Amino acid sequence: MRQSNLLLTTLREVPSEAETISHQLLLRAGYIRQLAAGVYTYLPLGRRVLRKIETIVREEMDHSGTQEILMPSMQPAELWKESERYDVYGKELMTFKDRHEREFILGPTHEEVVTSLVRNEISSYRKLPVTVYQIQTKFRDERRPRSGLLRGREFLMKDAYSFDISLEGLDKSYLQMFDAYHQIFKRCGLNFRAVQADSGAIGGEGGSHEFMALADIGEDTIAVCSSCDYAANLEQAEAIQPIKKELNLELPVLEKFHTPNLRTINQLEQELEIQPEQIMKTLIYEGSGQFFAVVVRGDHEVNEIKVSKYIGAAEIGLADYDAVKSLTGVESGFVGPVGLQITVLVDAAVAEMIQGTTGAGEKDYHYRNVVPGRDFELEHVGDFRNVAEGEGCPHCEDGILHFEQGIEVGHVFKLGTKYSEKLEASFLDRSGKSQPMIMGCYGIGISRLLSAIVEQNHDDQGIMWPVALAPYQVHILMMSVKDSGQLAVAEELYNQLTKLGIETLLDDRDERAGVKFKDSSLIGIPVTLVVGKEAAQGRVEYLERTSAGKETLEIFEAVSHIQEFFSQLN
Amino acid sequence: MRQSNLLLTTLREVPSEAETISHQLLLRAGYIRQLAAGVYTYLPLGRRVLRKIETIVREEMDHSGTQEILMPSMQPAELWKESERYDVYGKELMTFKDRHEREFILGPTHEEVVTSLVRNEISSYRKLPVTVYQIQTKFRDERRPRSGLLRGREFLMKDAYSFDISLEGLDKSYLQMFDAYHQIFKRCGLNFRAVQADSGAIGGEGGSHEFMALADIGEDTIAVCSSCDYAANLEQAEAIQPIKKELNLELPVLEKFHTPNLRTINQLEQELEIQPEQIMKTLIYEGSGQFFAVVVRGDHEVNEIKVSKYIGAAEIGLADYDAVKSLTGVESGFVGPVGLQITVLVDAAVAEMIQGTTGAGEKDYHYRNVVPGRDFELEHVGDFRNVAEGEGCPHCEDGILHFEQGIEVGHVFKLGTKYSEKLEASFLDRSGKSQPMIMGCYGIGISRLLSAIVEQNHDDQGIMWPVALAPYQVHILMMSVKDSGQLAVAEELYNQLTKLGIETLLDDRDERAGVKFKDSSLIGIPVTLVVGKEAAQGRVEYLERTSAGKETLEIFEAVSHIQEFFSQLN
Repeated sequence: MRQSNLLLTTLREVPSEAETISHQLLLRAGYIRQLAAGVYTYLPLGRRVLRKIETIVREEMDHSGTQEILMPSMQPAELWKESERYDVYGKELMTFKDRHEREFILGPTHEEVVTSLVRNEISSYRKLPVTVYQIQTKFRDERRPRSGLLRGREFLMKDAYSFDISLEGLDKSYLQMFDAYHQIFKRCGLNFRAVQADSGAIGGEGGSHEFMALADIGEDTIAVCSSCDYAANLEQAEAIQPIKKELNLELPVLEKFHTPNLRTINQLEQELEIQPEQIMKTLIYEGSGQFFAVVVRGDHEVNEIKVSKYIGAAEIGLADYDAVKSLTGVESGFVGPVGLQITVLVDAAVAEMIQGTTGAGEKDYHYRNVVPGRDFELEHVGDFRNVAEGEGCPHCEDGILHFEQGIEVGHVFKLGTKYSEKLEASFLDRSGKSQPMIMGCYGIGISRLLSAIVEQNHDDQGIMWPVALAPYQVHILMMSVKDSGQLAVAEELYNQLTKLGIETLLDDRDERAGVKFKDSSLIGIPVTLVVGKEAAQGRVEYLERTSAGKETLEIFEAVSHIQEFFSQLN
Repeated sequence: MRQSNLLLTTLREVPSEAETISHQLLLRAGYIRQLAAGVYTYLPLGRRVLRKIETIVREEMDHSGTQEILMPSMQPAELWKESERYDVYGKELMTFKDRHEREFILGPTHEEVVTSLVRNEISSYRKLPVTVYQIQTKFRDERRPRSGLLRGREFLMKDAYSFDISLEGLDKSYLQMFDAYHQIFKRCGLNFRAVQADSGAIGGEGGSHEFMALADIGEDTIAVCSSCDYAANLEQAEAIQPIKKELNLELPVLEKFHTPNLRTINQLEQELEIQPEQIMKTLIYEGSGQFFAVVVRGDHEVNEIKVSKYIGAAEIGLADYDAVKSLTGVESGFVGPVGLQITVLVDAAVAEMIQGTTGAGEKDYHYRNVVPGRDFELEHVGDFRNVAEGEGCPHCEDGILHFEQGIEVGHVFKLGTKYSEKLEASFLDRSGKSQPMIMGCYGIGISRLLSAIVEQNHDDQGIMWPVALAPYQVHILMMSVKDSGQLAVAEELYNQLTKLGIETLLDDRDERAGVKFKDSSLIGIPVTLVVGKEAAQGRVEYLERTSAGKETLEIFEAVSHIQEFFSQLN
């Protein structure tokens, strides 16, 4: 491709709306343009990278025996009512009515459509298992679209769905997809981790893993073991269950004391000179129409996912000021578990405390010498908190957990029969008995991957594409298009490389050398050949985007040098 | 691919909702499934054919120097108001509001988006010309979706847009695309014609061609010359302009006569024993807020496109009963041009009549001996009718026009500055003067093509895919999966063919031979190998889908025989 013909405009200024590096660079280097909040056009360079990702995904999907289909974006709302997700998704669903006033949903995901498809196509165990996938545009009305392609409202996904006759079958389908995902992300040159995850609003029971691209700006925190290969989303990471202690009845009795205006753990810590781990923090939640308290240590955070699962609520939230006041008689800073008339969930780390300090349920007062099990009931004890950095690994003896930030680029779920039961996708088993199909679903954020890769592969000059995803492999910079010698050399190299199937971009613009170098670094093609003054002496300069050095090559050896570079990578 | 694993269910019954052959066959052979009216899922076989079409389109687009991009489906409604198409499209636009009550359109086409993109990217003549394309899902809320993929509400399109600095540049870009389209449809194995067309609601001025797949069920009528290569959409086909006659003033005078209840041409023809070509038919139209009359010969049809262009109205329609009555004093069956107080458009074929019969503007009366130019004005004479079969060709001396039916599969338009002016996409020319970019737009109905191909390639047993689009090249039918000899031969052939890169479907299902043959004919893969009883004697049967005969081959020569068949086609 000749750059003079390419629809490509680079920007010198950092666009003000772009906060993350990948968003800035993809805009500046002319890969994407915003049309509306969270809605992007892919310019030629961006489209090329997307297609490379699509090709890798297709190859690995096909290799795993998964069959490509294409389902519509327009989904009848009735299907979402059948699955009972219509209300769960709420405002994130983009919906519209057709000219006959029939309501449609712009698919954010396709469980309903694929389940209704397969229930009509397959009725016997003999046609199972089957796994299908599609690469397709999805829609989700994010409240706050941000970071460019990382959280958009219209985005490209690969979604796959497996249908099995048994849980063992699902395990196998899941593992096949899990392996394919490893392969895909590896081929994309991504630094990633597969972590245990919560299956969220989409999921049924059974397992779930997220594939996380490690990046400082990632919205997700991952707890990773320093010793074994345990890694889990913070939402999901298990806290070590402490050894159950004996109740010591000889401890000092409960003592109420005056703590004017000491409402936060911080204030208590500073004024009373006690450690946060000696404090019991009591929070009032609401979920599934009931109120309940959760008690965690002062240095711990409540994990709302774990709590909702225990309570059996789809969603929970902190109770508001009025509710707290009317339930406990006091504002939240002075609430404590002693004497509370609602269900109290006690985190295991609190249950194991000998004694501690809590709110007294009275303005400006706390209790000290509060003994769990003596001063309040230990009826609901469990893992209700986030793990903390430095804690022991729940899966091995030696490991210590540390945190990393990740961008979710893939997700595999064991759905079980959640959708097949609601949408009645069943099959006749060997004995002629009707059974619900056992499903899995598997997603990859194709467009998001593009941003994740840039987050991991850049320097202060611009993008540094992994070879497999680069829009072009080689960038030829002609220093002066008015120099007929340079022109001849550049054209010759361009033709030779192109003939060999090496995707080459030729900067044939009438621009200053500085502009060409700047643009080239910004765009981030792996190999650059500079055709400048030395071309007259039969020499060109060879640069690799990921290393600082440069080499001077004889023109006749340039092509073979490049071939060698790429062949070493395979 | 092993058929036992493939998500494929064939249907014996013709689905009641499917009227056209392609719709029936694509459903019966398991290529597509309907999700809602005009909204389809592509099953694995259908997706494979779509991808083959996509690949051919991409190769030819890339080859023509067109750059691939990807624009969003979500388009801000403001853009459509800027271009003034928001109201023109009316109910065919699918629109929705996001959570912030901002209105979006699900793109049926992308002129607005691409023009606003390019106006931001390009400001100088030095970066032009440029042509971009995308392959993308489009949405159009058809009032009556029908014929499966032929008229859907969600469909796959290739759309391209060119931007030039001059009309000569546009001509070149247009021609490049025109040639690429020829190449694409040829490679798809389509029987098609490029015809002159009207540019309709989308277009600006300048030329336009439609690429028509010839098929009896086509919704469009094409006038084709028997001698030269003239072909035009009926909307557009020019009638030969008759030689201007001299006005003969010695003709008999106008005579009113009683014609009780003779309102139609048919009734006049039968009761008065005159030929339709001796009658002048007068119709009252409304357009751009004015009423006017159009007079054509009794055997001709008014061409509303030609009339609207003459009048300069976006749309015209027949005036209603009340309007006709109040303008002419009589109901429409007795309206005539004599004495009419509104503008009268006279078709050239009427203007050349010596004399004829018309309504008299009075109930139950007609005039005979009506002489154009004597009895009514010939101020507005022109080509206001459809051509008729058997007429002479407007472009050569010898040819006669005949009609064919076509399915529009591609369309190329010269848009000119319609969008660039409204959306202010301008560039600085060599002299530093700001000029609107000159645009073209070019579409291919990718999913519709799939149906058009099936309309042209089937017999009463099923589909007969052209090799380039077939989902698989070879279909191996194993007659008995319980016969270990057959199994071994079939597997060996399957492995050999697959290794050679020949896409092969192996029917390894435990089904009767009759079922396998029926399914195979329905699915329509070009070559079938039957592994049956003779496998024990080292022989298989070879069939081509498009010919009735079959050959018995030695197993060892089967693969080379197949290779030869495919190599002959290239």
